[in-house]
Amino acid sequence: MHCGISKTVDAPKNYSESSETGRLEIFPQYLEALEGIQVGQTIVVLFWLHQARRDLLKVYPRGDRSRGLRGVFATRSPVRPNPIALSELKVLRIRDNVIEVAGVDVIDGTPILDIKSAVGPEPASEKP
Amino acid sequence: MHCGISKTVDAPKNYSESSETGRLEIFPQYLEALEGIQVGQTIVVLFWLHQARRDLLKVYPRGDRSRGLRGVFATRSPVRPNPIALSELKVLRIRDNVIEVAGVDVIDGTPILDIKSAVGPEPASEKP
Repeated sequence: MHCGISKTVDAPKNYSESSETGRLEIFPQYLEALEGIQVGQTIVVLFWLHQARRDLLKVYPRGDRSRGLRGVFATRSPVRPNPIALSELKVLRIRDNVIEVAGVDVIDGTPILDIKSAVGPEPASEKP
Repeated sequence: MHCGISKTVDAPKNYSESSETGRLEIFPQYLEALEGIQVGQTIVVLFWLHQARRDLLKVYPRGDRSRGLRGVFATRSPVRPNPIALSELKVLRIRDNVIEVAGVDVIDGTPILDIKSAVGPEPASEKP
């Protein structure tokens, strides 16, 4: 992922709250696997959160200490034994092995693990 | 995952089309990370599809040859370079380190990579 977010503290808490855009750069050897992705559709992207802590089992959800500690598997915290993030991103543009997307909630340089189509029919006129 | 589906050909194509139930067995050392998961909620579970092929970049979506080949990143096919599956499962029961769920679309013995809460508010009376 290439984007303007350089520090984890600056990353939106979730894709559903993000208006950030960025570019998914796919290794050229996987170019064929992108065929069929269309501008305007929503893709599900799995990232490896290379800077996330893996040794904590409980967190304060969204850093809010008033709600008490919760198990990481009951949250969307980046902190978890396998720090895999799941973002639903809107495809703005595709050029060769680079997909421009909106809704970015991870930092610049975050490795991509997988891309999938979203489940269910795509609304024809989703918000841009 | 423990469930009654033993062969990949028998697995539902997607969690949204599955009424299968099964049990997620979490390693006891991660028990604390489950705190806060509630019966009735939807959890997002990431699985490692240990039997999936990783060397194909294009597939016939759902095996339907009439629609032509498509890049795996434009599909939900289990075939992909990193064979990670994403299921949204309904929590039926929790007992110690075992979570009983509905909506299973993977085979018995599939390793669990991660569990997250679903994004957004949970409807109070979702379908069971």
